[in-house]
Amino acid sequence: MSFQAPVRDLLFTLKHVVEIGRLSQGGAFAELDEDTLAAVLEAAGQVTTDILAPLNRKGDQAGALYQNGKVTAAPGFADAYKAFAEGGWTSLSADPEFGGQGLPKVLELAVLEMVNAANMAFALCPILTQGAVEAIHAHGSDRQKALYLPNMISGTWTGAMNLTEPQSGSDLGTLTTRAEPDGNGGWLLHGQKIFITWGDHDAAENIVHLVLARLPGAPEGSRGISLFIAPKVLVNEDGSLGQPNALRAGSIEHKLGIHASPTCVMLFEGAKAELIGQPNKGLAHMFTMMNAARLNIGAQGVGIAERAYQQALAFTQERRQGRSPWSHDASAAIFDHPDVRRTLIAMKVRVEAARAICLLTALNADLAASAAEPEIRAAAKLREEVLTPIAKAWSSDIGVEVASMGLQLHGGMGFIEETGAAQHYRDARIAPIYEGTNGIQAIDLAGRKLGLEDGAGIAALIRDVDATVEALNESGDMEFDAIGHRLGHANRAFEAATSWLAERRGGPDALAGATPYLKLVGDVLGGWLLAKGALAASKDAGSVEDRRRRLLAGHYAETLLAQAPGYVASVTAGAEALHALTPEMLG
Amino acid sequence: MSFQAPVRDLLFTLKHVVEIGRLSQGGAFAELDEDTLAAVLEAAGQVTTDILAPLNRKGDQAGALYQNGKVTAAPGFADAYKAFAEGGWTSLSADPEFGGQGLPKVLELAVLEMVNAANMAFALCPILTQGAVEAIHAHGSDRQKALYLPNMISGTWTGAMNLTEPQSGSDLGTLTTRAEPDGNGGWLLHGQKIFITWGDHDAAENIVHLVLARLPGAPEGSRGISLFIAPKVLVNEDGSLGQPNALRAGSIEHKLGIHASPTCVMLFEGAKAELIGQPNKGLAHMFTMMNAARLNIGAQGVGIAERAYQQALAFTQERRQGRSPWSHDASAAIFDHPDVRRTLIAMKVRVEAARAICLLTALNADLAASAAEPEIRAAAKLREEVLTPIAKAWSSDIGVEVASMGLQLHGGMGFIEETGAAQHYRDARIAPIYEGTNGIQAIDLAGRKLGLEDGAGIAALIRDVDATVEALNESGDMEFDAIGHRLGHANRAFEAATSWLAERRGGPDALAGATPYLKLVGDVLGGWLLAKGALAASKDAGSVEDRRRRLLAGHYAETLLAQAPGYVASVTAGAEALHALTPEMLG
Repeated sequence: MSFQAPVRDLLFTLKHVVEIGRLSQGGAFAELDEDTLAAVLEAAGQVTTDILAPLNRKGDQAGALYQNGKVTAAPGFADAYKAFAEGGWTSLSADPEFGGQGLPKVLELAVLEMVNAANMAFALCPILTQGAVEAIHAHGSDRQKALYLPNMISGTWTGAMNLTEPQSGSDLGTLTTRAEPDGNGGWLLHGQKIFITWGDHDAAENIVHLVLARLPGAPEGSRGISLFIAPKVLVNEDGSLGQPNALRAGSIEHKLGIHASPTCVMLFEGAKAELIGQPNKGLAHMFTMMNAARLNIGAQGVGIAERAYQQALAFTQERRQGRSPWSHDASAAIFDHPDVRRTLIAMKVRVEAARAICLLTALNADLAASAAEPEIRAAAKLREEVLTPIAKAWSSDIGVEVASMGLQLHGGMGFIEETGAAQHYRDARIAPIYEGTNGIQAIDLAGRKLGLEDGAGIAALIRDVDATVEALNESGDMEFDAIGHRLGHANRAFEAATSWLAERRGGPDALAGATPYLKLVGDVLGGWLLAKGALAASKDAGSVEDRRRRLLAGHYAETLLAQAPGYVASVTAGAEALHALTPEMLG
Repeated sequence: MSFQAPVRDLLFTLKHVVEIGRLSQGGAFAELDEDTLAAVLEAAGQVTTDILAPLNRKGDQAGALYQNGKVTAAPGFADAYKAFAEGGWTSLSADPEFGGQGLPKVLELAVLEMVNAANMAFALCPILTQGAVEAIHAHGSDRQKALYLPNMISGTWTGAMNLTEPQSGSDLGTLTTRAEPDGNGGWLLHGQKIFITWGDHDAAENIVHLVLARLPGAPEGSRGISLFIAPKVLVNEDGSLGQPNALRAGSIEHKLGIHASPTCVMLFEGAKAELIGQPNKGLAHMFTMMNAARLNIGAQGVGIAERAYQQALAFTQERRQGRSPWSHDASAAIFDHPDVRRTLIAMKVRVEAARAICLLTALNADLAASAAEPEIRAAAKLREEVLTPIAKAWSSDIGVEVASMGLQLHGGMGFIEETGAAQHYRDARIAPIYEGTNGIQAIDLAGRKLGLEDGAGIAALIRDVDATVEALNESGDMEFDAIGHRLGHANRAFEAATSWLAERRGGPDALAGATPYLKLVGDVLGGWLLAKGALAASKDAGSVEDRRRRLLAGHYAETLLAQAPGYVASVTAGAEALHALTPEMLG
């Protein structure tokens, strides 16, 4: 079925839940107005529905092609990328000095969610390019920025991130790709990288590879890694294209999903490269753009969940089967069965909660970078840091869960590939894995992020949730009171789990409790943001939006929030029993 | 990686958790001894590891083939089926009068779990054949039994169940395939069936189709459906094969998983058929074998979860990445990371709980059919009825969940098809859908099953759980006391949810709460059975089994049991808000 850009819901969350208006209170985005916001989303919605969504199934079926040492994008994808770039969609948040539009990241993320919903495999090309742009923008020399950024931001060239090696996945400290001096002050890269997303393709004139590798004599481990630029086609100093570089795709992977996104083995065979940033600081340089990359994956979870939800909603209104207890129609649309509606609502609340968490993270990234007052910038930076692993992991898990629910609502048709529901279930499954597995996100949250400023970031979240609990309780509205009750309980669980973990931070007990902790925190924050939305919508009492938002917040409270306290036992179970495990006991 | 038949764990659960010894207390299986049990499981384990498991990945890649109107099984599958049949694995529980071995269903289910683990697509062929055998055994005439059963039980012929039509999935009352008199007292079938598992193939000499269709002038709806036998090749009265029948596969589906199981569109073009059982009682006849069929799907969930668990366990012991907080090894096996061990345990407890629920259901089916005392038979029948939807739905959901966890533990490799983890994730996804979607199972549990004998079946389960709580509390063992505490709490939640539903049985509120109710009940029963296992193993204090079973029951209590009370709010949320929903509010 066709994809409908969820512009109304995105605007609601931007305005009323994450309060994008905060960007207008001075700082770099003071001039952003609601009309611009709506116009950008509408236009993006059109591109995603008209150009990207129709290619999604075709791309899944045909996939990217590897032949004679070169990768060809799936049919139609190269043209779509050109149209996407020409529409300005690769340059939304980029620096105007290099041709970017200088719009907030939160708006870009809203657009990216739709791009992911329309065509997740396609979306990875601009996502990876953006990562490369940010790396060069943050750490490149003026010459490097001038040479590479304009073409990458305009979409004439794309970017790829070359980190993983066969023995180096979650732990990049063991990577072995090496740089040798070329005798002219540059470097020649030798090594093999795997899982390189859009590492080769024919959709753009050039591909700018950012590559982690070791300089000669560099220290072992993570402190001896440097970051390099190695373009597929060498770039002359006047910006024109020169000779092909000594790098190539060795193969592409046969994957569960995102078939149209070529996942390449990249071979660097003495490829000319230039160092970017400081020697041996490559990992640190990569980390500066990690938040944005992780947040983008969260948006993939939201996007695929939204797409799966839309498809299931349409199917359940068409498919007729069995008698409804409401209509007593002997062959009712399955939408009229309570269990089906329950499932649809369960999907929708997850989409809305994950969307709100991701957009809130992006808004804080914008505030951190651009707010007029330094206190606001600092608080926003802390919040961005804390929310990022939640946005990535919770939302990508939601993507898998909602895609699975959507498939289930199709009954037997869901298991047939041509229906399309199965593709979402397959595509969604990568998001919990890449850009740091969700287990690593959880460890980041329960470890480093919980420790930032002595736990101030988490404490501030707990306070903000309590403020919403208070607003719910004081609303004089019985439904809101019930939601406030559940949210308050869940928030106490959040608080208790946090205290327990904070005392054990970095130790095995905290590591063992990290994943259920992230789940608990995400569940609470999702409920908080849905409740905020319901409170905002209630100002227009009796409106469709008021009824919608009440229903969503109420269902979420009765399900995920009611279940949240039950996770404290998992969080606080400790690692002793796990430590005592032997393979003999498990086999 | 290679599949290891989980014979030790199956034997433990059979002996100590579901107490298979109860079958020896008189009745048809009085002579079953532990040595026979172990010998059958060991032999089955060998067939599954040596013959079926090696074909699993190949079958996924090649799939069944449809060409020139005929279906060819995936390469190697026809030979494997012959070997499987020759080994006697198609006849375990079948009636000795027709060549069966007359063994208990609980033993057969344990074998079938391993078959599913080794090769889920293959397993469907004997599963569907067994359904057809049971239908003919229960409802066929003596002539029909003599003509069809021996060859089906020996595996010379297979069986297929032809129920679904494009407009008739969950609601078979709308099916339109019709039977016309052939002028000789027989019938000619006209119509199209879809989703017919192993509906055509070349792995056996003949395929005996059981087909639901309407007699001329039959009442509309579900009361006008009759059951027919229509073999692929007509069978002469002396049992020899005659002419091909006028039925054929029109195509096979391109599916998400179980590629080696041909899912056929079957075209009946005046196919000769004989009525089986009573006219217009076809649906009722099918329902008599529904319990067994649903339980078999539960065993698919267990099997695929076991396979995914084994693969993840092996991978995590090989893959080295990052520093372990225990060993401080800078490049530790990921098995030494707390979050990875937590995930492995989470997988293992789900496998063991689902295994126990399925085997307990099968044991009750055996007792219901064979126990010496009528009271035991009646109580066992009631328990079988109540447990069947839980065994089917809870276990098949577990299959999907555990397969997803297993894929995640592989990191990026999990998303690459050649690793094999992705196949489990794809294959597992069908089990919550077929043989009655899990939503339908939940409605069956919260509706008809809860109502049986005024709720006596559920009440007996709650009492039995409480008896285990008491045993845990009285054990004088602190760990067991803690488990008992959680199990008791969870059981009170089970009780409260049951009472609420019982008052609303059949109404929209109960229908809306059915799915979270089934989840809650399955979670409680899984914890109960794991606790029973731990109590039994503790008799050999300090043994590996004692430590294993404590660990499993303890982890389950801290996670699923601790979370169980949180589901009461979902169960009791009611349907009012759902009823008020409009597509406008959801879109």
